[in-house]
Amino acid sequence: MNDERTIRELIEGWAAAVRRQDLDGILARHAADIVMFDVPPPVVLRGIDAYRESWGPFFEAFSGGGTFEIADLEITSSDSVAFATALLHCVTGLTDPAKSGPQLRLTVGLRKMNDSWIVVHEHHSFPQ
Amino acid sequence: MNDERTIRELIEGWAAAVRRQDLDGILARHAADIVMFDVPPPVVLRGIDAYRESWGPFFEAFSGGGTFEIADLEITSSDSVAFATALLHCVTGLTDPAKSGPQLRLTVGLRKMNDSWIVVHEHHSFPQ
Repeated sequence: MNDERTIRELIEGWAAAVRRQDLDGILARHAADIVMFDVPPPVVLRGIDAYRESWGPFFEAFSGGGTFEIADLEITSSDSVAFATALLHCVTGLTDPAKSGPQLRLTVGLRKMNDSWIVVHEHHSFPQ
Repeated sequence: MNDERTIRELIEGWAAAVRRQDLDGILARHAADIVMFDVPPPVVLRGIDAYRESWGPFFEAFSGGGTFEIADLEITSSDSVAFATALLHCVTGLTDPAKSGPQLRLTVGLRKMNDSWIVVHEHHSFPQ
């Protein structure tokens, strides 16, 4: 249960950093070789530099105010590998009003390295 | 490494069952309480009955022939929890020709129960 609680705090802290548009906070617990399936193209982003750059367009859309709230978070964890699923209420200046509910689906994959949990995978999508 | 090999065979076997339109084969290693983020709405499907029903429209689109090939599969596993990421080359009668490459992103979450790996989460999406 300690691992689940730690992972919950990690993901809630990441979402809070997104709301603050705090890039260092967003990246703080992410692996150098993260594999990201983001909402916009490309199909896959590999590595922390590509992950970092993906937040630029999001912050632009978010700069006029928005919402990024986890509505639901479920964690499946061993003592070394875990994944989490969540629905997020994500609204930016670019959001289609039809997508204004908690419709952003998030899957996060994590590993424990040197006794700390880190994010090695994120998959973000809306239904199409 | 045995766990990784077992999970690789499970996921390759699942994709082969999709190609055969073999619903029993698709469902054979899935949990009763699976959480599915599918390409079409709704936002989330919960439970094996909803998961089973989601394949009906896919098979209709696939009935004239199609492609469902894993182009890339990476597995992160402990001895009890694992997740996998993959890109799939998925083509059906409804596929936008612009999406004809390996553009379907798949994340799978698994648990080991009674010494067998089972799928408890799937997240399928295209970039938007």
